[in-house]
Amino acid sequence: MNSISMQTNADALILSALREDITSEDITTNAVMPHFQLGEVELICKEDGVIAGLKVFQRVFLLLDEKTECSFSCRDGERVKKGEKLGRVRGDIRVLLSGERTALNFLQRMSGIASYTRTIADLLQGSGTKLLDTRKTTPNMRIFEKYAVRVGGGHNHRYNLSDGVLLKDNHISAAGGVREAVRMAREYAPFVCKIEVEVENLAMLREALEAGADIIMLDNMSIEQMKEAVRLTAGRAQTECSGNVTKENVAKLVDIGVNYISSGALTHSAPILDLSLKNLHAV
Amino acid sequence: MNSISMQTNADALILSALREDITSEDITTNAVMPHFQLGEVELICKEDGVIAGLKVFQRVFLLLDEKTECSFSCRDGERVKKGEKLGRVRGDIRVLLSGERTALNFLQRMSGIASYTRTIADLLQGSGTKLLDTRKTTPNMRIFEKYAVRVGGGHNHRYNLSDGVLLKDNHISAAGGVREAVRMAREYAPFVCKIEVEVENLAMLREALEAGADIIMLDNMSIEQMKEAVRLTAGRAQTECSGNVTKENVAKLVDIGVNYISSGALTHSAPILDLSLKNLHAV
Amino acid sequence: MNSISMQTNADALILSALREDITSEDITTNAVMPHFQLGEVELICKEDGVIAGLKVFQRVFLLLDEKTECSFSCRDGERVKKGEKLGRVRGDIRVLLSGERTALNFLQRMSGIASYTRTIADLLQGSGTKLLDTRKTTPNMRIFEKYAVRVGGGHNHRYNLSDGVLLKDNHISAAGGVREAVRMAREYAPFVCKIEVEVENLAMLREALEAGADIIMLDNMSIEQMKEAVRLTAGRAQTECSGNVTKENVAKLVDIGVNYISSGALTHSAPILDLSLKNLHAV
Amino acid sequence: MNSISMQTNADALILSALREDITSEDITTNAVMPHFQLGEVELICKEDGVIAGLKVFQRVFLLLDEKTECSFSCRDGERVKKGEKLGRVRGDIRVLLSGERTALNFLQRMSGIASYTRTIADLLQGSGTKLLDTRKTTPNMRIFEKYAVRVGGGHNHRYNLSDGVLLKDNHISAAGGVREAVRMAREYAPFVCKIEVEVENLAMLREALEAGADIIMLDNMSIEQMKEAVRLTAGRAQTECSGNVTKENVAKLVDIGVNYISSGALTHSAPILDLSLKNLHAV
Amino acid sequence: MNSISMQTNADALILSALREDITSEDITTNAVMPHFQLGEVELICKEDGVIAGLKVFQRVFLLLDEKTECSFSCRDGERVKKGEKLGRVRGDIRVLLSGERTALNFLQRMSGIASYTRTIADLLQGSGTKLLDTRKTTPNMRIFEKYAVRVGGGHNHRYNLSDGVLLKDNHISAAGGVREAVRMAREYAPFVCKIEVEVENLAMLREALEAGADIIMLDNMSIEQMKEAVRLTAGRAQTECSGNVTKENVAKLVDIGVNYISSGALTHSAPILDLSLKNLHAV
Amino acid sequence: MNSISMQTNADALILSALREDITSEDITTNAVMPHFQLGEVELICKEDGVIAGLKVFQRVFLLLDEKTECSFSCRDGERVKKGEKLGRVRGDIRVLLSGERTALNFLQRMSGIASYTRTIADLLQGSGTKLLDTRKTTPNMRIFEKYAVRVGGGHNHRYNLSDGVLLKDNHISAAGGVREAVRMAREYAPFVCKIEVEVENLAMLREALEAGADIIMLDNMSIEQMKEAVRLTAGRAQTECSGNVTKENVAKLVDIGVNYISSGALTHSAPILDLSLKNLHAV
Repeated sequence: MNSISMQTNADALILSALREDITSEDITTNAVMPHFQLGEVELICKEDGVIAGLKVFQRVFLLLDEKTECSFSCRDGERVKKGEKLGRVRGDIRVLLSGERTALNFLQRMSGIASYTRTIADLLQGSGTKLLDTRKTTPNMRIFEKYAVRVGGGHNHRYNLSDGVLLKDNHISAAGGVREAVRMAREYAPFVCKIEVEVENLAMLREALEAGADIIMLDNMSIEQMKEAVRLTAGRAQTECSGNVTKENVAKLVDIGVNYISSGALTHSAPILDLSLKNLHAV
Repeated sequence: MNSISMQTNADALILSALREDITSEDITTNAVMPHFQLGEVELICKEDGVIAGLKVFQRVFLLLDEKTECSFSCRDGERVKKGEKLGRVRGDIRVLLSGERTALNFLQRMSGIASYTRTIADLLQGSGTKLLDTRKTTPNMRIFEKYAVRVGGGHNHRYNLSDGVLLKDNHISAAGGVREAVRMAREYAPFVCKIEVEVENLAMLREALEAGADIIMLDNMSIEQMKEAVRLTAGRAQTECSGNVTKENVAKLVDIGVNYISSGALTHSAPILDLSLKNLHAV
Repeated sequence: MNSISMQTNADALILSALREDITSEDITTNAVMPHFQLGEVELICKEDGVIAGLKVFQRVFLLLDEKTECSFSCRDGERVKKGEKLGRVRGDIRVLLSGERTALNFLQRMSGIASYTRTIADLLQGSGTKLLDTRKTTPNMRIFEKYAVRVGGGHNHRYNLSDGVLLKDNHISAAGGVREAVRMAREYAPFVCKIEVEVENLAMLREALEAGADIIMLDNMSIEQMKEAVRLTAGRAQTECSGNVTKENVAKLVDIGVNYISSGALTHSAPILDLSLKNLHAV
Repeated sequence: MNSISMQTNADALILSALREDITSEDITTNAVMPHFQLGEVELICKEDGVIAGLKVFQRVFLLLDEKTECSFSCRDGERVKKGEKLGRVRGDIRVLLSGERTALNFLQRMSGIASYTRTIADLLQGSGTKLLDTRKTTPNMRIFEKYAVRVGGGHNHRYNLSDGVLLKDNHISAAGGVREAVRMAREYAPFVCKIEVEVENLAMLREALEAGADIIMLDNMSIEQMKEAVRLTAGRAQTECSGNVTKENVAKLVDIGVNYISSGALTHSAPILDLSLKNLHAV
Repeated sequence: MNSISMQTNADALILSALREDITSEDITTNAVMPHFQLGEVELICKEDGVIAGLKVFQRVFLLLDEKTECSFSCRDGERVKKGEKLGRVRGDIRVLLSGERTALNFLQRMSGIASYTRTIADLLQGSGTKLLDTRKTTPNMRIFEKYAVRVGGGHNHRYNLSDGVLLKDNHISAAGGVREAVRMAREYAPFVCKIEVEVENLAMLREALEAGADIIMLDNMSIEQMKEAVRLTAGRAQTECSGNVTKENVAKLVDIGVNYISSGALTHSAPILDLSLKNLHAV
Repeated sequence: MNSISMQTNADALILSALREDITSEDITTNAVMPHFQLGEVELICKEDGVIAGLKVFQRVFLLLDEKTECSFSCRDGERVKKGEKLGRVRGDIRVLLSGERTALNFLQRMSGIASYTRTIADLLQGSGTKLLDTRKTTPNMRIFEKYAVRVGGGHNHRYNLSDGVLLKDNHISAAGGVREAVRMAREYAPFVCKIEVEVENLAMLREALEAGADIIMLDNMSIEQMKEAVRLTAGRAQTECSGNVTKENVAKLVDIGVNYISSGALTHSAPILDLSLKNLHAV
C-alpha cells in the first residue's frame, strides 16, 4: 500500500479505528506514565504465514506521534515463521502502549488474509488459472483486505459497484435478455470497463458470447458443464468460476481450464495471523 | 443494537461502508434499470448458526432509501437453520441490488461471530464461568462485533482503552510495582472503573489482592497455578483467565473455577455465517 | 442521477455547498421573515439549452427542509427554450430564498455542461464516433459533471485514477517499453479494467497492438497519421483521439474513423446555462 | 491564499478532491512504478493569461507527500505567456503523476477566473468604478474562486448569506416596504454589516436613501435611469450596478458613474487557462 | 434559531455532542429497558430567568428518534419562573433517558446566557446604547451562544474573523498608521463590511474619523475621555465601548452616550439556568 | 492532556473551533499584513487562579502553522497570579493574530474550571471526601473540561453514558426494583464497570447494599439522613453525595463522611479565568 493511498484513503480509516479504541484517553497508561519515556518494543510472529500490512501497522503509531520509528526485517508478502522477530517500534512508551492493539488488529487481519490467499494461490501455481477476490470484504476494510489478497498472490476482481460491470440474472431479466443487457451496459458504463456476464447454462453462455461479453462468470454449474463452457468459449472471452474454493476441490477446479477462480472466503473467513508486541523496554 | 446507538455511532460507519462500495454509482444496475420498479427479495440462511445484526442489515437499505421495508421471521440471537427463510426486503429494485452486498457483509460477519460465540458459551453453560470478548476486533467494526458477542451469549470486557483499567506488566514496571500501579490507577481513573491487574505468578497475585485490585487476570499460568490462584483469591476479587480457548480445552478451563474466560478468537477469527438474498422479483 | 448516488455521494457535497453559503444563517431573510410563510417560486429558463441536474436542484431544497416540494415540466436531457417555465418550488419562503443560489449554482453549471456537450455530440451524430469526457472536471464536482456529460449525449471515460488504466509516456518509460507496461498493468490492475495505451506514432501503435492493448489513445498526431493508425489497428483495439475539439474541426476528426473523441472542454470550459427563480409569492 | 485559510478551509476541500480522483489507488502508476523514484516535472503555460492558485497547486502535492518541493518563477497575479515555464515540482514520481490532474484542475480554473477578471478590470482602469464578483460560484469552490477574482484585480462582494445584508424585492415585500426592511435588517444583523438594498426604480431609490441604506444595487434599469440614480444618490450611499458585463458594454457602464459593477460571469463562465505538466524525468 | 441554520450548521454539532456522551451505547438504560416503551417527561424550570434554545433541546431528541414529540408552553425569549412547567417530551423512554443530559446541557447554557444578557440589557433600556456580544464564546458553541444573546435582548457584533473588520493596535502598526490601515482594509475586505478601528486616545480617534472609519471602538479610556470621544465623533461614526460591564457600572457607561457597549462576559461567564426533566412516566 | 488524546480526540474539535472563527479568512489581518513577519506575543495572567490547558492553547497555533513555537513558565495545575507572564508564542504574526481568540477561548475556560475546582477541592483537603465532576459539561467540550477538573484537584465521575452504570429512579422502576435493576445491569454492562445506584431513602439504601451495588449515590437527603446512610453502608459500598456544593455548605457536607461529593457547577457555571495576549512585536 503506497503512501498516496495511505494519505487519500487509509488514514481516515486508521484514525477512526484509533478513535474507536480511545474515546477520551488510555486511562491505564496515562495513570502510571505521566511523563515521556523513550521505549522500544519488538514485533514477534507467533504463527507461520505471510505478512501483510506493515505500513498500515506503522501508520497507526505515526498518527499518534509522527516521531515514532518503525523498522522491519521483512517486507509485505514474505513468509514469516513462528518465533521470528519481524521488526521493532521505538518511541514514547505511551504511544507504543496506546497504539499496540489497533496496530495489531490491522496487521493480524491483513496477514491472515495474505496467508490464507497464499495457501490457495500456491495450489493454483503452474496452472493457467488465477485466484480472485470478491466484494465480500469486511465493511470499511476493503482497501486493506484487497491489498492483502494481492500480497498473498491473489488478484483483484472489481473494487466496487462503480468500477466494473457484472450482469447477474436480475440485471439480465430487467434488461429483457443477455443481448440487451450487454448492449445497455456498453452504452451506459464508462467504455474502459469490461462487461462481465454471469451465466447459468450453456445457452446463456452462447448468448453472452454473441453479445460480445468480455468476461463470462460460470455460476452454479457442474464441473463437466464448466469444462464444456470453456471449450465453447474458445478464448473469445475470459472465464471465471465463482464457487466454494477449498484446498480439497482446487485440483478439480484447475482442471476446468477457466482463467479465474474467485473466492469470497479469502476476505470473509480467513482467520488472523497471530502476532504480538513483546519485550517493551525503556531505551 | 438499539436505534440510539444506530443514530449516534453505527450510521456513520454503515454509510462509510456504502461509500466504499459505491464511489460514484452502481453502473451495472443503473445501466439496465433506468426507472423505479418495486421489488422484493428473500433473506435465506445457507448454514446453521445464530443470527445477529438484522437491524444493521435493515439500516443499510434504509440509508439508501428510507421507504425500503424489511420484515424478519426471526430475531437477533435465535438459532437459524440452513435453508430457512429469515425475512424479506421490499423496495426499489435498484436499492435492493445496490445495497445487497454491504448489507450481507455486515450481517454475515455479525452472525458468524454470534454463532461462534454461542458454540463456546454453550460449553460453559452450567459452570459459574462466563465467556468474555477482548479488544481484538476488526478496526471500525467494534460496535457491531461486541454486540454480536452478546447476542451469541458472551459478555463484554471493557469497550476500549478509555473505559476500563487493565494494568499489564509494562504498566506495573513503569509504576514501580503492583501496589503503586493500583494506587496510581485508582487516583487517576474515573472512580466508576474497576481496577484489573494482570498477574503472572502467585506472588504477583498476592500483591494485587493486597493492593485491592477488583479483577485479576491470570496470564500465562498453568492450569494448576490458576486453580491455586482462584483458591488464594477466595472471592476477594474477580478472576479472569485469558487464553487460547478452544472447544477442546474449555472443559479444563471450566474446572479452574475462574469467573471469566476471555477469547480474542470470538471476534478476530470467527468465519462468517453464510447467508444470501434470493428470489428477487418485481411486485 | 438516481437517489442511491445522491445518498451515498452527492448529499455530502450538496450539504457542504450549503454550508459554504450559510456559515451561520441567512441574515437578510431571517431579519425580515421571522415566521413561517408558505410560498412558491418558478424556475425560468433564460437561454436555449439542455437541462441537467433537476434532482440535484431539488435536493438542495430538501436538505434544508424535507417538506419542500418541487415539480418540473421537463426532464434531464430535454432541450429548453429561453422564457420557458421549467418547474416550481413550493415551501417555507425562507427555504426558497436561502437555498436559491446554491440550487441554481448546481443546476446552471450542470445544464451548461449538458448544453455544450449536446452541441458537439450532435455534430458527431450519424458517424461511428462517440464523444467522451475526461478527468478535467472541477474539483469536488465530478459526480455532477460526468452525469451532465451523459445527459448531454456524451459518454464517460474512466471516472478516476482507480477505475481505469491509461498508460502514458511516463508510465511506458518507467516500465521499459510498451510491451512491458501493458504486461505489468494487466498483472496489477483489477482484471475487469481494459488497458489503454497512449501512442505518439505508428511504431508505438504497432507495439501496443502486439502487446494486446484494449484501447489506443492517439496523441498529438496529424489527421493523416491518425487515419493510418485506425487502418493499422483494424478493429483489434478501440481507438480514441484526444484533442482540442471545436465545432470547426469536428468534421475532420469524424473522418478519421476513430471510435472515440475525448474533450476536456466539456467540463472545464462550458459556460453555464442561464436560469433563474422568479415570481416568488406567498400561497 | 495564505496558509491559515489553507489549514482551516482549503485543505479539507483539496483532500476531498484527491479522494474523488483516487478512490483506492492510481492503478496505472502503481502497476509500473512499484518503487520510489525521485523525479521532476515542469509547469508550462499554454495560453496567455494571469496565474492564480500556485499555493493550492502546491498543496495538492504536499497533501500526498509533504516532502514534495515546488518552485515557481512567477507569483499569483502575474501575467503569464504561452510557452513560459512557470515552475517545477520535484518528488516521488508517483506523487507527481497521481497528483497532476487534481493540481491542474485547481490551477487552471483559478487562473481562468483571474485571467477573465483581469480583462474586465483593465477596461475599468482609471474610472472610479470597481469590479465585483457575486455568489454565483461553483459549489465547494467559493474560497478558491473569490480569491482568484481578487488576484485578477476584482473585488469581493459579500462572501455568503451570513456576512452581508442584501434586501431584494421579496425581502422588501415581506417586510412591508423599503423603510421597514432596512429597519428590520439593522435591528437583526450584526451591526458591522452594511445594509444593501436592491432598487428597481427611482422611487424605490429615494425610499432606500431615506431609510439609510448603505449600498444601493441598481437592478434592471436603463443606462439613463442609472445615471439619474447616481445623481440622486449624491454620495449618500454606495452604488452598485449588477448586469451582464461584457467587453462591449463596459464603456457605457463606466459612464454611469456607479461605484461598483458586479459580474457573475467572472466565476460561473470563465474558461480555464490552459496549463500543463511536461518533461517529467527522473533525477 | 430557524430550521435552516439547524440543518446546515447546528445538527452536526448536536450530533457530535451526542456522540461525546454515547460512544457505544447508554449501558444503564439498555440494561434495564430492552424494549420500546412510550413515555413522557416534563421540562421544569428550577430558577427564574429567560429561556433560550428550545428548538435545540428538541433537536437533540429528534436526532435520536425522529418520532419524539416535544411541546412547549413558552417560547425563546420569555421569562420563566422557578417551578414552572415549560413543556414535555414524549417518545421512547430510552430516547428520553439517553438524550436528557445532552439536551439539558444545551438548553441550560443557552438559557443562562439569555438570562444574563437580559439583566444587563434591561439596565440599558431607554438609553440609546445597545448591548453587544464578542467573539469570547465557548469553542464550537458560537452559533448557539450568539443566538442566545439575541434572545436575551443583546445584539451581535461580528460573527467571526471572516465577516467583520476590526483594526487593533497591531494591525495599525503593521499598516503604518490608522489612515493606511483603514485604506488597506477598505481595499481588501468585501465592500459590504464596515471598517471598525480601535482607538486608545483622542488623537487616534481624530485620525480614524478622518480616515473614514465606520465604527470606533474606545479602548481603555476613562469615562471622561470616552465622553469627549463621543462628542468629537459627532455622529460621523458609530461608537463602541468595550469594557468590563457590570450591573454596578452600567449606569456610568450609559451616560457616555456611545452607541454600543460590548461584553465578553455574556458568553464566557454566564452561569447556566437550572432546568430539569422530571416526572418521567410510561404512557 | 497528553499528545495521544490530542491526536485522536482534541484536534478535530480544535480545528472545528478554528473554522468557526475563520470561515474564509481573517480579513483584517490579511488586509494589512500581506507578507510573513516573525513576531512574538506574551501570555499574561489578569486574575489569580489555576492554569489549565496550555497544550490545547499551543495546539491552536500549531494547527494553523506547525512552525509556531510556544514556551511557558508554568505548567497545568499551577497557581498563577494577576500580572504574571505565563509564556510566549513566537511565529508568523498573522498566525498569532488569527489564532489568538480561539486559543484564549480554550485556555480561559479550562483555567476557569480548574480555578473553581481548586477552590472547592481545597475546602475538602484533609477530609476523606473527594470532589467529583458530572456529565453537566458544555457540549463538545467534555474532553477539555473533565481534564480541567482533574488539573484543579477534582476527580472524574464516569466520562459518559457508555462507560459507567448509574441506576436512577426511572431505571429502577423500569426494572421492577433495586435488586432486579442491579442484577440486569451486572448481566448487561461490561463487567469492568462498577454499578452505582441512586437512592432516596434508607430503605432503598439497604436494598441497594443487599443487591451488591458498588457505589451509592445519596440523592435529595437531609444531612442527618446522609450521615445515617454512611453509617449503615459501613464501607460495603462507596458513597457519593450529589448536591449543590457551595463554599458555605462544604463544611457540613464533609461532616457526613461520604467518599465523594459531585458538583455540576464545576463545569457548567465556573466563570473563565481572565488571560490575554499582550505586547505583540516583530522579532
